[in-house]
Amino acid sequence: MTQEPFPTWADLAPQLVNVAAGRVPADMIITGGIWVNVHTRETLPDHDIAIASGRIAFVGPDASHCKGPDTQIIEARGRYMIPGLCDGHMHIESGMLTPAEFARAVIPHGTTSMFTDPHEIANVLGLEGVRMMHDEALMQPINIFTQMPSCAPSAPGMETTGFEITAEDVAEAMTWPGIIGLGEMMNFPGVSNADPQMLAEIAATQRAGKTVGGHYASPDLGPAFAAYVAGGPADDHEGTCEADAIARMRQGMRSMIRLGSAWYDVESQITAITERGLDPRNMILCTDDCHSGTLVNDGHMNRVVRHAIDCGCDPLIALQMATINTATHFGLERDIGSLTPGRRADVILTSDLKTLPIEIVIGRGKIIAEDGKCVVDCPHYDWPVSARQTVNMGKELTGADFHIAAPQGANAVTANVIGVVENQAPTRALKFELPVTDGRVQPTGDVAHIALVERHRATGGVVNAFVSGFGYEGPMAMASTVAHDSHHMIVVGTDPDQMALAANRLREVGGGITIFRDGAELALVELPIAGLMSDSPAAEVAAKADQMMQAMRDCGCTLNNAYMQHSLLALVVIPELRISDLGLVDVRTFEFIPILEPHT
Amino acid sequence: MTQEPFPTWADLAPQLVNVAAGRVPADMIITGGIWVNVHTRETLPDHDIAIASGRIAFVGPDASHCKGPDTQIIEARGRYMIPGLCDGHMHIESGMLTPAEFARAVIPHGTTSMFTDPHEIANVLGLEGVRMMHDEALMQPINIFTQMPSCAPSAPGMETTGFEITAEDVAEAMTWPGIIGLGEMMNFPGVSNADPQMLAEIAATQRAGKTVGGHYASPDLGPAFAAYVAGGPADDHEGTCEADAIARMRQGMRSMIRLGSAWYDVESQITAITERGLDPRNMILCTDDCHSGTLVNDGHMNRVVRHAIDCGCDPLIALQMATINTATHFGLERDIGSLTPGRRADVILTSDLKTLPIEIVIGRGKIIAEDGKCVVDCPHYDWPVSARQTVNMGKELTGADFHIAAPQGANAVTANVIGVVENQAPTRALKFELPVTDGRVQPTGDVAHIALVERHRATGGVVNAFVSGFGYEGPMAMASTVAHDSHHMIVVGTDPDQMALAANRLREVGGGITIFRDGAELALVELPIAGLMSDSPAAEVAAKADQMMQAMRDCGCTLNNAYMQHSLLALVVIPELRISDLGLVDVRTFEFIPILEPHT
Repeated sequence: MTQEPFPTWADLAPQLVNVAAGRVPADMIITGGIWVNVHTRETLPDHDIAIASGRIAFVGPDASHCKGPDTQIIEARGRYMIPGLCDGHMHIESGMLTPAEFARAVIPHGTTSMFTDPHEIANVLGLEGVRMMHDEALMQPINIFTQMPSCAPSAPGMETTGFEITAEDVAEAMTWPGIIGLGEMMNFPGVSNADPQMLAEIAATQRAGKTVGGHYASPDLGPAFAAYVAGGPADDHEGTCEADAIARMRQGMRSMIRLGSAWYDVESQITAITERGLDPRNMILCTDDCHSGTLVNDGHMNRVVRHAIDCGCDPLIALQMATINTATHFGLERDIGSLTPGRRADVILTSDLKTLPIEIVIGRGKIIAEDGKCVVDCPHYDWPVSARQTVNMGKELTGADFHIAAPQGANAVTANVIGVVENQAPTRALKFELPVTDGRVQPTGDVAHIALVERHRATGGVVNAFVSGFGYEGPMAMASTVAHDSHHMIVVGTDPDQMALAANRLREVGGGITIFRDGAELALVELPIAGLMSDSPAAEVAAKADQMMQAMRDCGCTLNNAYMQHSLLALVVIPELRISDLGLVDVRTFEFIPILEPHT
Repeated sequence: MTQEPFPTWADLAPQLVNVAAGRVPADMIITGGIWVNVHTRETLPDHDIAIASGRIAFVGPDASHCKGPDTQIIEARGRYMIPGLCDGHMHIESGMLTPAEFARAVIPHGTTSMFTDPHEIANVLGLEGVRMMHDEALMQPINIFTQMPSCAPSAPGMETTGFEITAEDVAEAMTWPGIIGLGEMMNFPGVSNADPQMLAEIAATQRAGKTVGGHYASPDLGPAFAAYVAGGPADDHEGTCEADAIARMRQGMRSMIRLGSAWYDVESQITAITERGLDPRNMILCTDDCHSGTLVNDGHMNRVVRHAIDCGCDPLIALQMATINTATHFGLERDIGSLTPGRRADVILTSDLKTLPIEIVIGRGKIIAEDGKCVVDCPHYDWPVSARQTVNMGKELTGADFHIAAPQGANAVTANVIGVVENQAPTRALKFELPVTDGRVQPTGDVAHIALVERHRATGGVVNAFVSGFGYEGPMAMASTVAHDSHHMIVVGTDPDQMALAANRLREVGGGITIFRDGAELALVELPIAGLMSDSPAAEVAAKADQMMQAMRDCGCTLNNAYMQHSLLALVVIPELRISDLGLVDVRTFEFIPILEPHT
């Protein structure tokens, strides 16, 4: 189902040469714009761009020699012509949208190239799922390059994913047409410790001449960081402060700085350029994770570039960080990232380099967005049943599946409780004294039930524990099949019967997010593809996600980013306490601990 | 005979990681140097570099955790540690030295990587000759990457080379381990006119993911230039003024600016950076052509970097232009060009960033030069007989072979004469009235005989004509098998018998340069490899070349670069008049013209 790759410069060179020489007419000429040259870091007024078969044939003060009777003329009328924007690292699944719908949402914002790591679907559907994402990516009118996921499971031995990614999978994927490199190598302790599988994945990528994505999520810049660098990752987007950015660039990595829906790492790192004056060529802008609401309301890479400029960055340097720097990093500088001959004709017209209104977007030589509207088809992959029926719970659940039995004769117990912390990804490992009624431990106060419902292999497994911090009141439950990174189902609720309702509902609709109160469904976000993504438009998904978040508030939850907190409760690589299909995990020690402390 | 390629980062990653983490000792540590960081464009005092198996494992303020009992310690003592220098484009044959002897000559100057186009040998020995150069290159202790020659013959139909290079040859060469891309695409009119063979060579290179070298030797920056750019060459080193450099960089090419033995194109172009303030990342320093004398007396890339600094360039930017810029251009930035983990440990220690004394050179983790002396072996390829017996004239020549018969009964004739012009590569198409004696045209005054002696296919062919401008007096002759680009033999002389002596002498020694006067040999430079190169040390070759140039002066020649003028007289791509094995060529029209004007 993979589309033919877009014709290469080599394929089109005879035509491009003839257009540039004026022997053959161009398909399109953009006239009278200000050429934003990201190679020389200049703006050059009164330039034309001639385009043929989707690539740039000529750029100069006068392209009239390339004009024929059928040449489409786009009047730039003194507007800036900037290269289409590149997102250096991101996960499409974070938008809860398929690649097609994600593309449709970001095209009006001027994004024409994305480097995407389908890490979430890899956990659910393995290499086959990565291939589906890759194939839909190649069908789009913009350039979506796939980074082969490197770490599924994220924490081997601590959880069971739907599938595992092996070094052989990585080597195979390197032969696919749309694979640009290895996705973020999150197992940084593994690399620092010379773990053979991690180094084999990196080696397979390097031997294919492709780029190894990094993910070093630690403030330790000593020998552990040095060892990670020596292992081969070529970039990193986990830096959070200026010293992180500087250390990465000095060590020969590219520092990717991100502004996602919940990541704010640009302002604190861009000072390496704006204040320290380091060579900016090794800094790259990216989003990492964007929710559909951000795409609908705020933008995508245009938002990141604007933000970089607001942080004091020279607009031309900020644009380089979202165009040529990214292209060079991935070995694509002769294909994308600048408005020069041979490159894909990905062009944005904008009236202002600081506020960056995205007025016209041209992708591969065709107008794909005008005035904020996508005007091109973004074809959908024919997702197979295997991708649409991924909620394999094995059985209908009842309230009893969520009961936690107390030890014989106990009136109260001490429970290990996952403590959610406002505005932080790490949780706390808390202990609560909980009462016992009818032999069952009863959550009280701010403590609620949490359950990890196995959904990949229909084992019928349900792991029960307790969580605090959401502030839920009354009989309710919320369930989600987005449950990083193994993406089983996380159910949080105050009442076992409501929890069963929510879990069964997601089984019925094939995945997504639901919230029940008093037996009624308050909100539902259907995510039928792998239980992670919708193939509905971003605006619809964003509206449903808004309803879902409102429903959480209606149930008493006042947390910021409350849904993200829910979906990260199974992320067994971030301390302190998480839940997995294998039990309650103390991530500080990578050990399983009991739900209830031994009865004394 | 190709040596095993140097182990890759992927091969060595387990060891590098363990060294960086302090679990395994380094082979070498350079301590207490000033780290010249070409990624960030900074100097960072008090840094250590730990090296293992020829690659850098760790760079930081303290590498003591990488030290073991057998670790070699190099005390930098506050000197600068800079990356080994890269020559972005050059021809080894120009030094009249084999790759091994060229390497031995440049190692003390800090050159550790060269991008070499064995264009001259390709004309003599074809693809097989390129392979021999490539194989000797891979045997050296520094990194010599081969650019596959693109244009042999330079001017199809105007000359006969020993061999021709085809698009199939190019495609085959792209599979060799040391091939980095396509050598300078000199047929720029061909590219601008969409010549299928030229575009096929470029396509074969691009499809192999390699870099296409350019050569656009024209001041025309209009549509002809645009068409050349659209054809795909990724760099160009033929610019001579600021506008040339700027045009190339704006169009997405890299501007290579050269300081060779006779090229002075840095000062006039580097102002694009130093005065115009353009982003310097797309400018690269190179030599193109260096004579052995320059290597012995003046330096190599250290000379170019110093010169760039003398022209007002910031030393760190000048160093970037000879290190990371070059590496990035050829897709090698994770292998060479900076002092960061994973890269080949090519390090120079120098006490001053402006005068750039090259005190210690480390190549792939071993000291290869100290205080101007090469201290490493540069192995010689076992050049086969086919490469050592390339002066195939077919027969012993006599004075009669150089006689030019006058038309029956003429007392005087009008001859078309190649006019050499002081300090210029182009010649003039001149006409002289010459007397006739014994039925032979006699050169008089400053006019001398010139002959192109066929030496590739033993045809016995001798093309005779006249040349002016050398100033030779008395009976003498000079012959050279270095005769760009087809490298037949050029003989210039005042006397046919001396010409026969000189030509036969080169046949006897297997090629080189000789000069005779009054029957005695004044100087001889033996170039037994393809008639182009010596496998003797550079100092010996330079001394013999000096004697040869003194002999030219002794015979009355006062031209600057007199030998270069001699060796370029068959270069049928530079106007106005040249000689080839097929006749006298008017390069303005690409037509053959008669030696003597029709007798009236």
